[in-house]
Amino acid sequence: MAPIKKGILERLSAGEVVIGDGGFVFALEKRGYVKAGPWTPEATVTHPESVRQLHREFLRAGANVMQTFTFYASDDKLENRGQTLKFTGAQINEAACDLAREVASEGDALVAGGICQTPSYLSCKSEKEVKAIFKKQVDVFLKKNVDFLIAEYFEHVEEAVWAVEVLKETGKPVAASLCIGPDGDMHGVSAAECAVKLVKAGAEIVGVNCHFDPLTCVKAVKLMKEGVEKAGLKAHYMVQPLAFHTPDCNCQGFIDLPEFPFGLEPRILTRWDMHKYAREAYNVGIRFIGGCCGFEPYHIRAVAEELATDRGFLPAGSEKHGSWGAGLEMHTKPWVRARARRGYWEELKPASGRPLCPSMSTPDSWGVTKGDAALMQQKEATSQDQLKQLFDRSK
Amino acid sequence: MAPIKKGILERLSAGEVVIGDGGFVFALEKRGYVKAGPWTPEATVTHPESVRQLHREFLRAGANVMQTFTFYASDDKLENRGQTLKFTGAQINEAACDLAREVASEGDALVAGGICQTPSYLSCKSEKEVKAIFKKQVDVFLKKNVDFLIAEYFEHVEEAVWAVEVLKETGKPVAASLCIGPDGDMHGVSAAECAVKLVKAGAEIVGVNCHFDPLTCVKAVKLMKEGVEKAGLKAHYMVQPLAFHTPDCNCQGFIDLPEFPFGLEPRILTRWDMHKYAREAYNVGIRFIGGCCGFEPYHIRAVAEELATDRGFLPAGSEKHGSWGAGLEMHTKPWVRARARRGYWEELKPASGRPLCPSMSTPDSWGVTKGDAALMQQKEATSQDQLKQLFDRSK
Amino acid sequence: MAPIKKGILERLSAGEVVIGDGGFVFALEKRGYVKAGPWTPEATVTHPESVRQLHREFLRAGANVMQTFTFYASDDKLENRGQTLKFTGAQINEAACDLAREVASEGDALVAGGICQTPSYLSCKSEKEVKAIFKKQVDVFLKKNVDFLIAEYFEHVEEAVWAVEVLKETGKPVAASLCIGPDGDMHGVSAAECAVKLVKAGAEIVGVNCHFDPLTCVKAVKLMKEGVEKAGLKAHYMVQPLAFHTPDCNCQGFIDLPEFPFGLEPRILTRWDMHKYAREAYNVGIRFIGGCCGFEPYHIRAVAEELATDRGFLPAGSEKHGSWGAGLEMHTKPWVRARARRGYWEELKPASGRPLCPSMSTPDSWGVTKGDAALMQQKEATSQDQLKQLFDRSK
Amino acid sequence: MAPIKKGILERLSAGEVVIGDGGFVFALEKRGYVKAGPWTPEATVTHPESVRQLHREFLRAGANVMQTFTFYASDDKLENRGQTLKFTGAQINEAACDLAREVASEGDALVAGGICQTPSYLSCKSEKEVKAIFKKQVDVFLKKNVDFLIAEYFEHVEEAVWAVEVLKETGKPVAASLCIGPDGDMHGVSAAECAVKLVKAGAEIVGVNCHFDPLTCVKAVKLMKEGVEKAGLKAHYMVQPLAFHTPDCNCQGFIDLPEFPFGLEPRILTRWDMHKYAREAYNVGIRFIGGCCGFEPYHIRAVAEELATDRGFLPAGSEKHGSWGAGLEMHTKPWVRARARRGYWEELKPASGRPLCPSMSTPDSWGVTKGDAALMQQKEATSQDQLKQLFDRSK
Repeated sequence: MAPIKKGILERLSAGEVVIGDGGFVFALEKRGYVKAGPWTPEATVTHPESVRQLHREFLRAGANVMQTFTFYASDDKLENRGQTLKFTGAQINEAACDLAREVASEGDALVAGGICQTPSYLSCKSEKEVKAIFKKQVDVFLKKNVDFLIAEYFEHVEEAVWAVEVLKETGKPVAASLCIGPDGDMHGVSAAECAVKLVKAGAEIVGVNCHFDPLTCVKAVKLMKEGVEKAGLKAHYMVQPLAFHTPDCNCQGFIDLPEFPFGLEPRILTRWDMHKYAREAYNVGIRFIGGCCGFEPYHIRAVAEELATDRGFLPAGSEKHGSWGAGLEMHTKPWVRARARRGYWEELKPASGRPLCPSMSTPDSWGVTKGDAALMQQKEATSQDQLKQLFDRSK
Repeated sequence: MAPIKKGILERLSAGEVVIGDGGFVFALEKRGYVKAGPWTPEATVTHPESVRQLHREFLRAGANVMQTFTFYASDDKLENRGQTLKFTGAQINEAACDLAREVASEGDALVAGGICQTPSYLSCKSEKEVKAIFKKQVDVFLKKNVDFLIAEYFEHVEEAVWAVEVLKETGKPVAASLCIGPDGDMHGVSAAECAVKLVKAGAEIVGVNCHFDPLTCVKAVKLMKEGVEKAGLKAHYMVQPLAFHTPDCNCQGFIDLPEFPFGLEPRILTRWDMHKYAREAYNVGIRFIGGCCGFEPYHIRAVAEELATDRGFLPAGSEKHGSWGAGLEMHTKPWVRARARRGYWEELKPASGRPLCPSMSTPDSWGVTKGDAALMQQKEATSQDQLKQLFDRSK
Repeated sequence: MAPIKKGILERLSAGEVVIGDGGFVFALEKRGYVKAGPWTPEATVTHPESVRQLHREFLRAGANVMQTFTFYASDDKLENRGQTLKFTGAQINEAACDLAREVASEGDALVAGGICQTPSYLSCKSEKEVKAIFKKQVDVFLKKNVDFLIAEYFEHVEEAVWAVEVLKETGKPVAASLCIGPDGDMHGVSAAECAVKLVKAGAEIVGVNCHFDPLTCVKAVKLMKEGVEKAGLKAHYMVQPLAFHTPDCNCQGFIDLPEFPFGLEPRILTRWDMHKYAREAYNVGIRFIGGCCGFEPYHIRAVAEELATDRGFLPAGSEKHGSWGAGLEMHTKPWVRARARRGYWEELKPASGRPLCPSMSTPDSWGVTKGDAALMQQKEATSQDQLKQLFDRSK
Repeated sequence: MAPIKKGILERLSAGEVVIGDGGFVFALEKRGYVKAGPWTPEATVTHPESVRQLHREFLRAGANVMQTFTFYASDDKLENRGQTLKFTGAQINEAACDLAREVASEGDALVAGGICQTPSYLSCKSEKEVKAIFKKQVDVFLKKNVDFLIAEYFEHVEEAVWAVEVLKETGKPVAASLCIGPDGDMHGVSAAECAVKLVKAGAEIVGVNCHFDPLTCVKAVKLMKEGVEKAGLKAHYMVQPLAFHTPDCNCQGFIDLPEFPFGLEPRILTRWDMHKYAREAYNVGIRFIGGCCGFEPYHIRAVAEELATDRGFLPAGSEKHGSWGAGLEMHTKPWVRARARRGYWEELKPASGRPLCPSMSTPDSWGVTKGDAALMQQKEATSQDQLKQLFDRSK
C-alpha cells in the first residue's frame, strides 16, 4: 500500500514549491483528440490512452498536480456542444478522475478536481441554478475522492465565488484561479479585490490561469497577493499562464488576438523563457506554479529545472535534458558546441523566420465596448439575434 | 486475418498520395523521452508507450507510413553516445519495428525501416566498414519483415548510395532521402546529380528530408526530379521537411541557425502553412509527402486535409478538426466567429509577440570554410584536438 | 510696408490652427551644420544660408512660427561646449533672430524667441543665477523684437517656471513646453500639475516637445489640459513631438533608446503617420501643432495638409505634393498607379527592410535609479568623479 | 584665377577615390521642391536657392562631383509632365548647369552633365528620334562646358548605348550607369554583358545607380567588372545606390515595393550602414562612389569618413561630426557616453519602433509577367487603353 502523500496545503504551508501541469485542451488539440471551438474533454472516454500519456509526460516533467481533464465538462456546456448525445457528463468526469488518479499514483502527485465557468452563468441563470451545475461535477470528484479542488478559468469573480462556495462544502482544500490579467475581471473588479472576495469565500489558494503570458499573469497574482495582505487575510498563491507571448493583448486576453487559436505558433515560449517565468513567480512568493494553454511537457520540465536548486532535486524527465543546453557539448561543429552554456540561451533573441509578419498584432474587438462584450457573453447560446445586432452595430 | 495492404510502390505507381509521418526526435524531446544532442532512440525500449502513442497520433492524422524509430540507431552511433552500455543496437531496433508494426496494423499504414548517416562514414571508415554498420540494422528489418526501407538524412550522396546498395539486397522497395537543399550535398554534388546517383543505385523513391523548411525542400526535390527526367530515368519522389521556417539558412541547414535546437519555437509552421506546403509538393509531382523535425500530429493532419479532395477522404483525426477554422462557428464573440473561414487563415500574418527579436538570424559558421566544415564532420568522434584547432582558428 | 500680422494669442483665441516648424538640430545635423553631442547653434553665424534655407522650407511647408535657432544657446551651455571661444552668445542669438525674421516676413509667420534648460540649473545654481542666464537671451529677443517667446525642452518644471517668470517680464506672449511624457517631469511632478504650475507662472500656452513620439506627446498634453481645466484655469495648448516612433521609451524619452542619436532612421515617421498625429492633436483640442527632432519639411506639410479642410487652405509646398499620393496617378505601372489613393497609404504597414533587427529596443539605464539619473543630471559639467562612481556602481 | 582641376579620368586612373553626390529628386521632394510622380527638376528655375543649398551640402559632405540636376529633364519627359508649358527644357537644363558650376567652384568638385532614360524610347521611337532627344540636353552641357557626362538611370542597355554614343561625340569623358541589379537589364541582358556593351560603345566609366540598396548595387557592379575584364576590356567603375534597404526587391527594384515612394522611411540606411557600403565598394575595386535616392548629405559624409584613411583627408563637414560617435563623449548620462565608440554602432541592430509592421514586403506585380511589364513601359504616355487592359487582365 502506498504511503499517504502530503496534501496540497501541507506542502504550501511548509514553503514547498508545488509544480502544476500544463493545459490539456491545446496539447491534445495538436495531438488530435480535442476539437478547437467546443474544447470539450470527451477524449477521457473515447481516447483514454491519449489523456493518460499526457498526464504521464507532465508527471515525468516534474508536475505534482494531476488536474482532472474536466475542462468545459459541466453538463450545460457538454449539452451545448452536443457531447451529451454520446456520453453523460458523469461518464466523462469519472473517466477523467480515474486517469488522473492512475498516473498520480505513479509518482509524487496529487489529484485535483477542476471546474470552470459555465454557460449557465453567462446566460443569466440564477445562483442556485449555476451552483447546481457545479454540484454535479463535484459529486463525481467526491465519489472519486480527489485530493483537492480547483475552480479555474473564471472571467467573472462573482461566478468564481459561487464555485468556491460549492467546493467548500466538500471539506477538501480549495484553490480558485481566474482567467484575468492585472486589469481585473470582466465586470471591472480589480485583481486585488477579486482575490479578497475569493479568500473570504473560503479559497485557501488563489491566483490566475490562462489568457495571458507568464509575466503578465505573475504581475496579476502579485496584485492579488498585495490585496489579500492589505486586507489582513492569508492565502497561498498559484499561477498557470499561457505558453504564448502576449504583449499585445487587451484586457480580455489572447482570445481577441487575431492569431487565436490557429496561428499562435510564433508566440510559443522557449524553455528558457520558462526559466525566467519560474524564477519571477518564485520571487513574487507564488509557490503553486504550473501552466495552461500552450504548455508542453518540456515547458513544465523547464520550470522544475529552474527551481531545482530551491527544491533540491530535478524531475525524472531531466534524465533526457542537459541543463542549459549541456547536451550539445559533444556536437561535431564547434559553433554548435558553443551553445552548450547558460549565457548563450539566456541572451538569445530567437528569430521568427517570418520576415513578412509583424511582431505584434492589434486585438480584435470591432469597436465593441466592454459593456457590449460582457453582454455578449451573457447571451451565449441564447439569442443569436441579439448577437447579430451587436455584430452589425460594431461594423 | 487482415487483408494484405497495397505496397508503397503500387500506391505511388497508381498515382496515390502517400502521407508520411512526422519526425520523432523533436516531438519526443518535447515530451521528455529523447535527449537533444545525442538524439538516440532508446525510448523504444525504455518508454515504448511514448513511442506507440506518437505513432498512433500520426496514424490518426492521416499518415500511411510508420517509420521505425531507428534514427541514429546504428551501432557506431549508439556506442558513440553511450547507449550500448545499456542496450544492444538490436534491442532498440527490434523494439522500434514492433511498435511501428503494432500501430500500422491499426490502420492503412505501411512499416518503413529507416537508416541514416553514420559516424563511421564521417570518420573516414571504408565503404565495407560503413556498409557493415548499415547491414546490422537491415538484418533486424528483414527479421521483423518491414514493408519497405528508407535511407534518410544523408548529407553526402556517396554514403547514401552505399546505403541504397545495402538496402537493395533485401529485395524490398527502397527510398532514399538526403538532408540537402537546392544547393546540393556537402561535397558540392548538385541536387539533380544526387538524385540520378541514387536512382542508378537502385532507389525507387528519391527526395529530401529535414534541414530546411517545406518550400525549400520542395524546391530541392523539384531539381532532383528534373535531373532524373533529364537523365531519362524514372522514379517516385518524396519530401519530409522541417516544420520550421528557415529562410535564413545557409547550405548546411537549420543546425547552423543560432536558434538550433532550443530556440526554434517562433519558427514553427502553422497548420495553414502546411496546406500551402502540401499543395505545392503535390503540384510539383511529389506523391510521398510527410514531415520531419518540428512536425506535430496536427501538421500531418493539415497535409491530409489539404489533399483530401485529391484523395477522396479525410483522416480520422479530422473528426476533431473543423475545416479551415469551422470549429469557431459557434463562438460567443462575433469577431472570433469571423475567423471561421478559409480566407481569414490564408491571409493571416501571425505576429511573434516578440518585439525585441529579429525576424531572421545570421547562421553561425565562425568564418569556417566549407572545406573546414566537411573536415570537421569527418573527424567526428575521433580527434578532439583537431577540432580544437579549427575552433581556435575560427575565432 | 507690410500689414501687421495677427499675434499668436489672437490666432489661438480665434480658434485658428497655428502650425509650428520642425526641429533644427537634427535636420541640420543631417545637412552637416550641427554637431551631435554639443547640439549648439553656431551655424547661425558660420553658415547662415543653411539656417535660412531650413526656415524657408518650413515656411513653405505651412509653418506659421519661425522659432529662432537658439537651442542650447545660453551662455553657460555655449561655454561648456567650447563655442564661446569663437563667438559670443549674443552674436549667435542675434543672428538667429535676424534669420527667423527675414524668412517670417516672406509669409504668414511669427517669430518666436526660444530658450531651453540650462547646465546652470542642473549643476544646482541658484534661482537668481539661472534666471540671469535666461535674461541674457531674452535681452536679445527684446532688442530684435520677436513676436512671442517659448520656454521649451525643460525636464524639470521648476526650471521651466523660472524661465516663464523671466519671459513674462517682457510683456510678450509666453509659451512653455516641457520635454516630458504622460508620466510627468524628472522630479515626479505629474503632467497635469506641471501644466498648472506653468499657467500660474503666467504661460498663456502650455504643452510638450521632443523626447517622445507624436501620439505619446498628444497624450501628455491631454493630461495637461485636463489638469488646467480641473484647476479652473485657462490656457492654449501646443505640441511639438519627435518624428520618431518610440513605443519602447521609458519615462526619460528617446535619449535612453540604444539608437539615439545615430541609429534612429528606421523609426522615422512617414507623412501618413503625420496625418494621424495632426488629426489626433486637433481632436484633443491642441491648436499650436508643430514638430521637433526628426521632422523634415514634408512632415510639417503633411500636418498642414491634414488640417487643410479645417483651415480652408493648403500650404504653398502642396504645389509639389499630390494629396494622398495623387502624384502617382500617371505612373506607367498599374500597380504603382493603384497607390494613388488615401486608403492605400492609411493601411500600409511599411516594412523596415531589416530582417536582422528587432522592432523594439530595451532602453538603456544600466539599473541606475531615477534618483541617480536626476543626480547625474544635476552634476553635469561639474564632477566627473561622481559620474564615474555612478557608472561603476551601475555595472 | 582658380587652378585647373584634375579631370575625372585622371583622378580615377591615378587610383584616387572620387566621391559622388546623393540623389536630388528624393531629397528635394522632402524639402518641398520636387513633386513625386513627375519627378521633374524645374526647381532649378523656380527655386534655385534650394538646389544650390543641396549642392553645397553634398560638397561639404565630401562629394567631388556635382551632377547637374537634370534628371527627367529631356524635352519629351518635361512635355509629358506638363512642365514645358512653363519653361523650355533649355531653361531648366541651363539653370541646372549654372548651379552645379557655381557650387563646384567653391571646392574640389567637377560638374557632370547627366541624362537619363526617355519616354521616347519606351514608346518605341526610333534610334534617331531618341538620340535627337538626348542631343538637346547635350548641347546645353557643351554650351555650359561641364567637366564630364553621365548617362544614368537606364533600365534597357540598348537605350544606354545610344546615349553613350551621343555623349561620346562631345569628346568629354563619359560615364554610363544603369538602374539594374545583379540580374541584368529589363530585356534580360546580364549585368556583365551590359557593361561590355557600354564599354564598347565608348563609356570610360560604367556602373549602376538607383533601384537597389548599396550592397546589391555593389554586387551588380562586381559582375560588370568581371564581365569587362573577362572580355579583355578596361574601364573604371561607379556605383550610386539607394539609401534604402531593399532585400525584398524583385528584379525591377524598389518601385515595385509597396512602400514606394511614400512609405520608405523605415528602410533608410544609417550612417554606419554607409561605412559598410563604402568599404565594400572600395574592396571590390570601385572608385567612383556616390549615392542616389534617399541619400542625405550625412550619408555621403559617412562614405567620405570611411574612406578618409585611404584618401588621407576628411571632408569639411566632418568639422561637425565626431568619428564613430565621438561627439557623445561629453554626454551627461554614462550610458549615452558609452555609445561613443565604433564597436557600439557597428553592432547595433536598430529597432523600427513599429511592432505592427513586418520587416519585409512582397513586391507588387499583380501577376503581370516580365513581358507585360516591358510592354507597359513601352506604352508609357501613349495608350491608356492598353494599360487599362493590362491592368484588368492582371486582376
